[in-house]
Amino acid sequence: MEKETTIFGIRAIIEAIHSGENIDKVFLQKGLRGDLFSELENLVRSEGLNTSYVPVEKLNRLTKKNHQGAVAQIAPIAFHDLENLVMEVVESGKTPLFLILDQLSDVRNFGAIIRTAECTGVSGIIIQKKGGAPVNGDTVKTSAGAIFKIPICKVDHVKDAVFYMQASGIKVIAATEKAEDQVYDISFTEPCAIIMGSEGKGINPSVLKVVDQKAKLPILGEIASLNVSVACGAFLYEAVRQRL
Amino acid sequence: MEKETTIFGIRAIIEAIHSGENIDKVFLQKGLRGDLFSELENLVRSEGLNTSYVPVEKLNRLTKKNHQGAVAQIAPIAFHDLENLVMEVVESGKTPLFLILDQLSDVRNFGAIIRTAECTGVSGIIIQKKGGAPVNGDTVKTSAGAIFKIPICKVDHVKDAVFYMQASGIKVIAATEKAEDQVYDISFTEPCAIIMGSEGKGINPSVLKVVDQKAKLPILGEIASLNVSVACGAFLYEAVRQRL
Repeated sequence: MEKETTIFGIRAIIEAIHSGENIDKVFLQKGLRGDLFSELENLVRSEGLNTSYVPVEKLNRLTKKNHQGAVAQIAPIAFHDLENLVMEVVESGKTPLFLILDQLSDVRNFGAIIRTAECTGVSGIIIQKKGGAPVNGDTVKTSAGAIFKIPICKVDHVKDAVFYMQASGIKVIAATEKAEDQVYDISFTEPCAIIMGSEGKGINPSVLKVVDQKAKLPILGEIASLNVSVACGAFLYEAVRQRL
Repeated sequence: MEKETTIFGIRAIIEAIHSGENIDKVFLQKGLRGDLFSELENLVRSEGLNTSYVPVEKLNRLTKKNHQGAVAQIAPIAFHDLENLVMEVVESGKTPLFLILDQLSDVRNFGAIIRTAECTGVSGIIIQKKGGAPVNGDTVKTSAGAIFKIPICKVDHVKDAVFYMQASGIKVIAATEKAEDQVYDISFTEPCAIIMGSEGKGINPSVLKVVDQKAKLPILGEIASLNVSVACGAFLYEAVRQRL
Protein backbone atom coordinates (compact mmCIF):
# COMPACT_ATOMS: atom_id res chain seq x y z
CA MET A 1 0.00 0.00 0.00
CA GLU A 2 2.96 2.36 0.43
CA LYS A 3 3.89 4.48 -2.55
CA GLU A 4 5.94 7.46 -3.71
CA THR A 5 5.24 10.20 -1.20
CA THR A 6 6.63 13.42 -2.69
CA ILE A 7 5.44 15.36 -5.71
CA PHE A 8 6.92 18.64 -6.92
CA GLY A 9 6.31 21.40 -9.41
CA ILE A 10 3.40 23.86 -9.30
CA ARG A 11 1.36 22.40 -12.15
CA ALA A 12 1.89 18.82 -10.94
CA ILE A 13 0.60 19.66 -7.49
CA ILE A 14 -2.44 21.50 -8.89
CA GLU A 15 -3.26 18.43 -10.97
CA ALA A 16 -2.73 16.12 -8.01
CA ILE A 17 -5.17 18.13 -5.91
CA HIS A 18 -7.75 18.20 -8.71
CA SER A 19 -7.44 14.45 -9.19
CA GLY A 20 -8.15 13.83 -5.51
CA GLU A 21 -4.70 12.66 -4.34
CA ASN A 22 -4.34 12.36 -0.54
CA ILE A 23 -2.13 15.39 -0.06
CA ASP A 24 -0.84 15.50 3.51
CA LYS A 25 1.03 18.80 3.32
CA VAL A 26 2.09 21.41 0.75
CA PHE A 27 5.39 23.28 1.14
CA LEU A 28 5.51 26.60 -0.72
CA GLN A 29 8.51 28.85 -1.23
CA LYS A 30 8.39 31.99 0.87
CA GLY A 31 8.11 35.21 -1.14
CA LEU A 32 7.45 33.56 -4.51
CA ARG A 33 5.06 35.31 -6.96
CA GLY A 34 3.42 34.39 -10.27
CA ASP A 35 0.02 33.54 -11.76
CA LEU A 36 0.39 29.78 -11.55
CA PHE A 37 1.80 30.00 -8.03
CA SER A 38 -1.19 32.15 -6.98
CA GLU A 39 -3.54 29.58 -8.54
CA LEU A 40 -1.91 26.89 -6.39
CA GLU A 41 -2.10 29.08 -3.29
CA ASN A 42 -5.82 29.69 -3.84
CA LEU A 43 -6.49 26.02 -4.46
CA VAL A 44 -4.59 24.95 -1.35
CA ARG A 45 -6.56 27.48 0.67
CA SER A 46 -9.96 26.52 -0.72
CA GLU A 47 -9.23 22.82 -0.09
CA GLY A 48 -8.12 23.58 3.49
CA LEU A 49 -4.81 21.76 3.00
CA ASN A 50 -2.00 21.84 5.55
CA THR A 51 0.55 24.35 4.16
CA SER A 52 3.92 25.78 5.16
CA TYR A 53 5.76 28.69 3.59
CA VAL A 54 9.44 27.76 3.77
CA PRO A 55 12.84 29.01 2.49
CA VAL A 56 14.00 27.52 -0.80
CA GLU A 57 16.71 25.54 1.07
CA LYS A 58 14.00 23.49 2.81
CA LEU A 59 12.42 22.65 -0.57
CA ASN A 60 15.85 21.66 -1.90
CA ARG A 61 16.18 19.21 0.96
CA LEU A 62 12.73 17.73 0.26
CA THR A 63 13.58 17.01 -3.36
CA LYS A 64 16.63 17.24 -5.61
CA LYS A 65 14.37 17.75 -8.64
CA ASN A 66 13.26 21.07 -10.17
CA HIS A 67 10.45 21.92 -7.74
CA GLN A 68 9.62 25.48 -8.99
CA GLY A 69 8.95 26.54 -5.39
CA ALA A 70 6.36 23.90 -4.50
CA VAL A 71 6.62 20.41 -2.99
CA ALA A 72 3.70 18.33 -1.76
CA GLN A 73 3.76 15.24 0.39
CA ILE A 74 1.25 12.53 -0.35
CA ALA A 75 -0.14 10.55 2.55
CA PRO A 76 0.85 6.87 2.35
CA ILE A 77 -2.72 5.83 3.15
CA ALA A 78 -6.13 6.61 1.75
CA PHE A 79 -8.17 8.58 4.27
CA HIS A 80 -11.68 7.46 5.09
CA ASP A 81 -14.75 9.61 4.95
CA LEU A 82 -16.02 10.19 8.50
CA GLU A 83 -19.72 9.85 7.67
CA ASN A 84 -19.25 6.62 5.73
CA LEU A 85 -17.00 5.16 8.40
CA VAL A 86 -19.39 5.94 11.26
CA MET A 87 -22.27 4.46 9.25
CA GLU A 88 -20.26 1.30 8.46
CA VAL A 89 -19.25 0.80 12.10
CA VAL A 90 -22.78 1.36 13.39
CA GLU A 91 -24.21 -1.02 10.80
CA SER A 92 -21.56 -3.68 11.56
CA GLY A 93 -23.20 -4.24 14.94
CA LYS A 94 -19.98 -3.51 16.85
CA THR A 95 -20.17 -0.95 19.63
CA PRO A 96 -18.30 2.04 18.18
CA LEU A 97 -15.13 3.22 19.91
CA PHE A 98 -13.56 6.15 18.09
CA LEU A 99 -10.43 8.11 18.90
CA ILE A 100 -10.21 11.82 18.08
CA LEU A 101 -6.79 13.52 18.20
CA ASP A 102 -6.81 17.29 18.71
CA GLN A 103 -3.63 18.51 16.99
CA LEU A 104 -1.26 16.02 18.53
CA SER A 105 2.09 17.11 17.12
CA ASP A 106 4.77 14.50 17.85
CA VAL A 107 5.08 11.79 15.22
CA ARG A 108 6.39 9.21 17.72
CA ASN A 109 3.40 9.78 19.99
CA PHE A 110 1.11 9.64 16.95
CA GLY A 111 2.65 6.33 15.88
CA ALA A 112 2.42 4.82 19.37
CA ILE A 113 -1.24 5.89 19.58
CA ILE A 114 -2.07 4.33 16.21
CA ARG A 115 -0.50 1.06 17.43
CA THR A 116 -2.46 1.19 20.68
CA ALA A 117 -5.69 1.99 18.86
CA GLU A 118 -5.20 -0.96 16.54
CA CYS A 119 -4.49 -3.25 19.51
CA THR A 120 -7.57 -2.10 21.43
CA GLY A 121 -10.02 -2.50 18.56
CA VAL A 122 -10.66 1.20 17.95
CA SER A 123 -13.08 1.67 15.04
CA GLY A 124 -11.23 4.64 13.55
CA ILE A 125 -8.98 7.61 14.33
CA ILE A 126 -10.07 11.15 13.49
CA ILE A 127 -7.48 13.89 13.05
CA GLN A 128 -7.73 17.52 12.01
CA LYS A 129 -6.50 18.54 8.55
CA LYS A 130 -4.25 21.26 9.95
CA GLY A 131 -1.97 21.59 12.93
CA GLY A 132 -1.23 17.98 13.78
CA ALA A 133 1.56 15.49 13.17
CA PRO A 134 1.91 14.58 9.49
CA VAL A 135 0.71 11.31 7.98
CA ASN A 136 3.87 10.31 6.15
CA GLY A 137 6.65 7.72 6.01
CA ASP A 138 7.70 8.52 9.60
CA THR A 139 4.16 7.83 10.78
CA VAL A 140 4.18 4.49 8.99
CA LYS A 141 7.46 3.67 10.74
CA THR A 142 6.51 4.83 14.25
CA SER A 143 3.15 3.06 13.98
CA ALA A 144 4.99 -0.16 13.07
CA GLY A 145 2.65 -0.48 10.10
CA ALA A 146 -0.51 -0.35 12.25
CA ILE A 147 -1.57 2.72 10.23
CA PHE A 148 -2.48 0.35 7.38
CA LYS A 149 -4.82 -1.62 9.65
CA ILE A 150 -7.03 1.11 11.09
CA PRO A 151 -9.22 3.67 9.28
CA ILE A 152 -8.07 7.29 9.61
CA CYS A 153 -10.32 10.28 8.83
CA LYS A 154 -9.37 13.92 8.40
CA VAL A 155 -11.80 16.68 9.33
CA ASP A 156 -11.56 20.46 8.92
CA HIS A 157 -12.02 20.93 12.64
CA VAL A 158 -12.16 18.52 15.57
CA LYS A 159 -15.51 20.06 16.53
CA ASP A 160 -17.00 18.83 13.25
CA ALA A 161 -16.18 15.29 14.35
CA VAL A 162 -17.60 15.88 17.84
CA PHE A 163 -20.91 17.16 16.46
CA TYR A 164 -21.15 14.35 13.93
CA MET A 165 -20.46 11.72 16.60
CA GLN A 166 -23.10 13.22 18.88
CA ALA A 167 -25.65 13.38 16.06
CA SER A 168 -24.95 9.67 15.44
CA GLY A 169 -25.64 8.71 19.06
CA ILE A 170 -21.97 8.40 20.00
CA LYS A 171 -20.96 9.88 23.36
CA VAL A 172 -17.85 12.08 23.23
CA ILE A 173 -15.47 11.88 26.18
CA ALA A 174 -12.57 14.30 26.61
CA ALA A 175 -9.40 13.05 28.29
CA THR A 176 -8.38 16.09 30.28
CA GLU A 177 -6.96 16.88 33.69
CA LYS A 178 -9.62 19.65 33.85
CA ALA A 179 -12.21 17.03 34.83
CA GLU A 180 -14.03 16.07 38.00
CA ASP A 181 -14.62 12.45 37.02
CA GLN A 182 -11.90 9.85 36.89
CA VAL A 183 -11.66 7.58 33.87
CA TYR A 184 -13.01 4.73 36.06
CA ASP A 185 -16.25 6.69 36.69
CA ILE A 186 -17.07 6.77 32.97
CA SER A 187 -19.06 4.11 31.16
CA PHE A 188 -17.34 3.02 27.98
CA THR A 189 -19.77 0.20 27.22
CA GLU A 190 -22.04 2.38 25.09
CA PRO A 191 -20.94 3.85 21.72
CA CYS A 192 -18.26 6.42 22.46
CA ALA A 193 -15.40 8.51 21.14
CA ILE A 194 -12.40 9.58 23.22
CA ILE A 195 -10.58 12.86 22.51
CA MET A 196 -6.90 13.24 23.33
CA GLY A 197 -5.29 16.69 23.25
CA SER A 198 -1.92 17.91 22.03
CA GLU A 199 1.29 17.45 24.02
CA GLY A 200 1.66 21.10 24.96
CA LYS A 201 -1.83 22.51 25.17
CA GLY A 202 -4.17 19.61 25.73
CA ILE A 203 -7.64 19.78 24.19
CA ASN A 204 -8.74 23.10 22.72
CA PRO A 205 -11.05 24.89 25.23
CA SER A 206 -13.71 25.41 22.53
CA VAL A 207 -13.76 21.63 21.99
CA LEU A 208 -13.95 20.94 25.74
CA LYS A 209 -17.14 23.04 25.86
CA VAL A 210 -19.05 20.77 23.49
CA VAL A 211 -18.09 17.28 24.71
CA ASP A 212 -20.49 15.06 26.66
CA GLN A 213 -18.16 14.01 29.46
CA LYS A 214 -14.69 14.84 30.72
CA ALA A 215 -12.45 12.38 32.53
CA LYS A 216 -8.96 12.39 33.99
CA LEU A 217 -6.50 9.76 35.05
CA PRO A 218 -5.76 9.79 38.78
CA ILE A 219 -2.35 11.30 39.49
CA LEU A 220 -0.75 9.92 42.66
CA GLY A 221 2.64 11.63 42.29
CA GLU A 222 3.85 15.20 42.32
CA ILE A 223 4.43 15.69 38.60
CA ALA A 224 1.29 15.56 36.47
CA SER A 225 3.11 14.92 33.24
CA LEU A 226 1.96 11.73 31.59
CA ASN A 227 3.06 11.19 28.02
CA VAL A 228 -0.02 11.53 25.78
CA SER A 229 0.42 8.10 24.19
CA VAL A 230 0.63 6.51 27.66
CA ALA A 231 -2.49 8.40 28.80
CA CYS A 232 -4.31 7.36 25.62
CA GLY A 233 -3.37 3.72 26.29
CA ALA A 234 -4.70 3.91 29.84
CA PHE A 235 -8.03 5.30 28.55
CA LEU A 236 -8.35 2.76 25.76
CA TYR A 237 -7.49 -0.19 28.01
CA GLU A 238 -10.06 0.96 30.56
CA ALA A 239 -12.60 0.90 27.71
CA VAL A 240 -11.41 -2.61 26.76
CA ARG A 241 -11.70 -3.77 30.38
CA GLN A 242 -15.25 -2.54 30.68
CA ARG A 243 -16.26 -4.08 27.37
CA LEU A 244 -14.75 -7.51 28.01
CA MET B 1 20.24 18.18 41.65
CA GLU B 2 21.71 17.97 38.14
CA LYS B 3 25.48 18.24 37.90
CA GLU B 4 28.44 17.85 35.54
CA THR B 5 27.96 14.46 33.93
CA THR B 6 31.25 13.60 32.18
CA ILE B 7 34.64 12.77 33.67
CA PHE B 8 37.72 11.84 31.67
CA GLY B 9 41.26 10.58 32.14
CA ILE B 10 42.19 7.10 33.38
CA ARG B 11 43.34 8.09 36.87
CA ALA B 12 40.36 10.42 37.39
CA ILE B 13 37.89 7.66 36.54
CA ILE B 14 39.68 5.15 38.82
CA GLU B 15 39.43 7.66 41.66
CA ALA B 16 35.78 8.41 40.90
CA ILE B 17 34.93 4.70 41.09
CA HIS B 18 36.86 4.28 44.35
CA SER B 19 35.08 7.28 45.86
CA GLY B 20 31.67 5.80 45.07
CA GLU B 21 30.55 8.17 42.27
CA ASN B 22 27.39 7.04 40.44
CA ILE B 23 29.06 6.03 37.22
CA ASP B 24 26.46 5.25 34.59
CA LYS B 25 28.79 4.11 31.81
CA VAL B 26 32.52 3.95 31.01
CA PHE B 27 33.75 4.41 27.44
CA LEU B 28 37.20 2.91 26.80
CA GLN B 29 39.36 3.33 23.71
CA LYS B 30 39.48 0.20 21.57
CA GLY B 31 42.94 -1.40 21.36
CA LEU B 32 44.58 0.74 24.04
CA ARG B 33 47.22 -0.91 26.29
CA GLY B 34 49.09 0.13 29.44
CA ASP B 35 49.33 -0.67 33.15
CA LEU B 36 47.04 2.10 34.34
CA PHE B 37 44.54 1.35 31.57
CA SER B 38 44.54 -2.34 32.61
CA GLU B 39 43.95 -1.28 36.22
CA LEU B 40 40.89 0.68 35.09
CA GLU B 41 39.67 -2.24 32.97
CA ASN B 42 39.95 -4.62 35.93
CA LEU B 43 38.20 -2.18 38.26
CA VAL B 44 35.34 -1.59 35.82
CA ARG B 45 34.93 -5.35 35.46
CA SER B 46 35.01 -6.11 39.18
CA GLU B 47 32.44 -3.34 39.84
CA GLY B 48 30.18 -4.66 37.07
CA LEU B 49 29.98 -1.25 35.39
CA ASN B 50 28.38 -0.70 32.02
CA THR B 51 31.30 -0.40 29.54
CA SER B 52 31.79 0.16 25.83
CA TYR B 53 35.00 -0.16 23.84
CA VAL B 54 34.83 2.57 21.20
CA PRO B 55 37.06 4.21 18.54
CA VAL B 56 38.99 7.29 19.69
CA GLU B 57 36.71 9.50 17.52
CA LYS B 58 33.77 8.64 19.77
CA LEU B 59 35.76 9.67 22.86
CA ASN B 60 36.73 12.92 21.12
CA ARG B 61 33.05 13.64 20.60
CA LEU B 62 32.25 12.96 24.27
CA THR B 63 34.87 15.46 25.49
CA LYS B 64 37.24 18.00 23.95
CA LYS B 65 39.64 17.54 26.88
CA ASN B 66 42.64 15.17 27.05
CA HIS B 67 40.80 11.95 27.87
CA GLN B 68 43.75 9.48 27.62
CA GLY B 69 41.40 6.88 26.15
CA ALA B 70 38.76 6.85 28.89
CA VAL B 71 35.56 8.83 29.45
CA ALA B 72 32.95 8.08 32.09
CA GLN B 73 29.44 9.40 32.38
CA ILE B 74 28.11 10.13 35.83
CA ALA B 75 24.42 9.52 36.46
CA PRO B 76 22.57 12.76 37.25
CA ILE B 77 20.86 11.07 40.20
CA ALA B 78 21.99 9.11 43.23
CA PHE B 79 20.83 5.51 42.96
CA HIS B 80 19.07 3.91 45.89
CA ASP B 81 20.06 0.67 47.52
CA LEU B 82 17.38 -1.94 46.78
CA GLU B 83 17.34 -3.52 50.22
CA ASN B 84 17.10 -0.18 52.02
CA LEU B 85 14.40 1.05 49.67
CA VAL B 86 12.24 -2.08 50.03
CA MET B 87 12.60 -1.87 53.81
CA GLU B 88 11.66 1.82 53.86
CA VAL B 89 8.60 1.26 51.69
CA VAL B 90 7.42 -1.74 53.71
CA GLU B 91 7.91 0.19 56.97
CA SER B 92 6.10 3.27 55.60
CA GLY B 93 2.85 1.30 55.70
CA LYS B 94 2.16 1.89 51.98
CA THR B 95 1.41 -1.16 49.89
CA PRO B 96 4.55 -1.57 47.79
CA LEU B 97 4.27 -1.26 44.00
CA PHE B 98 7.65 -1.65 42.32
CA LEU B 99 8.54 -1.54 38.66
CA ILE B 100 11.39 -3.66 37.29
CA LEU B 101 12.74 -2.92 33.81
CA ASP B 102 14.52 -5.76 32.05
CA GLN B 103 17.03 -4.06 29.73
CA LEU B 104 14.66 -1.56 28.21
CA SER B 105 16.85 0.21 25.65
CA ASP B 106 15.10 3.28 24.27
CA VAL B 107 15.69 6.44 26.28
CA ARG B 108 12.35 7.96 25.22
CA ASN B 109 10.46 4.90 26.41
CA PHE B 110 12.51 4.92 29.60
CA GLY B 111 11.66 8.58 30.20
CA ALA B 112 7.95 8.06 29.51
CA ILE B 113 7.91 5.09 31.91
CA ILE B 114 9.60 7.11 34.66
CA ARG B 115 6.92 9.80 34.21
CA THR B 116 4.14 7.22 34.34
CA ALA B 117 5.64 5.52 37.40
CA GLU B 118 5.85 8.84 39.22
CA CYS B 119 2.22 9.63 38.31
CA THR B 120 0.94 6.24 39.48
CA GLY B 121 2.69 6.27 42.84
CA VAL B 122 5.24 3.56 42.09
CA SER B 123 7.54 3.02 45.10
CA GLY B 124 10.71 2.64 43.04
CA ILE B 125 12.10 1.55 39.67
CA ILE B 126 14.71 -1.21 39.44
CA ILE B 127 17.01 -1.44 36.43
CA GLN B 128 19.91 -3.69 35.57
CA LYS B 129 23.45 -2.25 35.66
CA LYS B 130 24.21 -3.44 32.14
CA GLY B 131 22.30 -3.55 28.90
CA GLY B 132 19.61 -0.95 29.41
CA ALA B 133 19.03 2.67 28.46
CA PRO B 134 21.49 5.03 30.15
CA VAL B 135 20.62 7.23 33.09
CA ASN B 136 21.93 10.55 31.75
CA GLY B 137 20.89 14.02 30.68
CA ASP B 138 18.63 12.59 27.95
CA THR B 139 16.82 10.51 30.55
CA VAL B 140 16.30 13.61 32.69
CA LYS B 141 14.86 15.38 29.66
CA THR B 142 12.61 12.56 28.42
CA SER B 143 11.34 11.95 31.96
CA ALA B 144 10.42 15.65 32.21
CA GLY B 145 12.32 15.74 35.50
CA ALA B 146 10.25 12.93 37.05
CA ILE B 147 13.51 10.99 37.51
CA PHE B 148 14.31 13.29 40.45
CA LYS B 149 11.03 12.37 42.16
CA ILE B 150 11.18 8.58 42.18
CA PRO B 151 13.84 6.26 43.65
CA ILE B 152 15.84 4.25 41.11
CA CYS B 153 17.90 1.19 42.02
CA LYS B 154 20.49 -0.63 39.94
CA VAL B 155 21.05 -4.37 40.34
CA ASP B 156 23.60 -6.70 38.77
CA HIS B 157 20.84 -8.84 37.33
CA VAL B 158 17.06 -8.45 37.18
CA LYS B 159 16.74 -11.88 38.81
CA ASP B 160 18.47 -10.53 41.93
CA ALA B 161 15.63 -8.03 42.26
CA VAL B 162 12.99 -10.71 41.66
CA PHE B 163 14.41 -12.96 44.39
CA TYR B 164 14.77 -10.10 46.83
CA MET B 165 11.20 -8.95 46.22
CA GLN B 166 9.88 -12.48 46.73
CA ALA B 167 11.90 -12.90 49.92
CA SER B 168 10.32 -9.66 51.16
CA GLY B 169 6.78 -10.89 50.54
CA ILE B 170 6.32 -8.92 47.33
CA LYS B 171 4.62 -10.74 44.45
CA VAL B 172 6.42 -10.42 41.10
CA ILE B 173 4.24 -10.12 38.00
CA ALA B 174 5.69 -10.30 34.50
CA ALA B 175 4.03 -8.28 31.74
CA THR B 176 4.33 -10.65 28.81
CA GLU B 177 2.26 -11.77 25.89
CA LYS B 178 3.38 -15.31 26.80
CA ALA B 179 0.73 -15.42 29.53
CA GLU B 180 -2.62 -17.11 30.02
CA ASP B 181 -4.01 -14.51 32.41
CA GLN B 182 -5.06 -11.06 31.36
CA VAL B 183 -3.93 -8.09 33.40
CA TYR B 184 -7.52 -7.79 34.72
CA ASP B 185 -7.31 -11.30 36.24
CA ILE B 186 -4.39 -10.30 38.46
CA SER B 187 -4.76 -8.83 41.94
CA PHE B 188 -2.62 -5.74 42.38
CA THR B 189 -3.97 -4.87 45.83
CA GLU B 190 -1.29 -6.84 47.66
CA PRO B 191 2.41 -5.83 47.64
CA CYS B 192 3.68 -6.37 44.11
CA ALA B 193 6.33 -5.64 41.50
CA ILE B 194 5.68 -5.49 37.76
CA ILE B 195 8.40 -6.43 35.25
CA MET B 196 8.44 -4.88 31.79
CA GLY B 197 10.72 -6.34 29.11
CA SER B 198 12.87 -4.73 26.44
CA GLU B 199 11.42 -3.36 23.20
CA GLY B 200 12.85 -6.07 20.99
CA LYS B 201 13.03 -9.19 23.10
CA GLY B 202 10.59 -8.77 25.95
CA ILE B 203 11.47 -10.27 29.32
CA ASN B 204 14.45 -12.64 29.46
CA PRO B 205 13.17 -16.27 29.50
CA SER B 206 15.29 -17.07 32.58
CA VAL B 207 13.52 -14.23 34.41
CA LEU B 208 10.08 -15.40 33.24
CA LYS B 209 10.77 -18.78 34.88
CA VAL B 210 11.11 -17.32 38.37
CA VAL B 211 8.22 -14.82 38.51
CA ASP B 212 5.04 -15.46 40.51
CA GLN B 213 2.51 -14.52 37.86
CA LYS B 214 2.42 -13.62 34.19
CA ALA B 215 -0.15 -11.35 32.63
CA LYS B 216 -0.90 -9.94 29.21
CA LEU B 217 -2.93 -7.08 27.84
CA PRO B 218 -5.80 -8.22 25.64
CA ILE B 219 -5.06 -7.57 21.96
CA LEU B 220 -8.19 -6.99 19.89
CA GLY B 221 -6.45 -6.04 16.63
CA GLU B 222 -4.26 -7.85 14.16
CA ILE B 223 -0.90 -6.32 15.09
CA ALA B 224 0.31 -7.19 18.59
CA SER B 225 2.79 -4.34 18.78
CA LEU B 226 2.09 -2.09 21.74
CA ASN B 227 4.80 0.38 22.63
CA VAL B 228 6.39 -0.72 25.92
CA SER B 229 5.72 2.59 27.67
CA VAL B 230 2.05 2.38 26.66
CA ALA B 231 1.81 -1.22 27.89
CA CYS B 232 3.52 -0.24 31.14
CA GLY B 233 1.00 2.58 31.61
CA ALA B 234 -1.92 0.21 31.07
CA PHE B 235 -0.53 -2.18 33.72
CA LEU B 236 0.19 0.57 36.24
CA TYR B 237 -3.21 2.21 35.78
CA GLU B 238 -4.91 -1.15 36.28
CA ALA B 239 -3.01 -1.41 39.58
CA VAL B 240 -4.13 2.14 40.47
CA ARG B 241 -7.76 1.29 39.61
CA GLN B 242 -7.75 -1.79 41.84
CA ARG B 243 -6.11 0.08 44.70
CA LEU B 244 -8.44 3.11 44.64
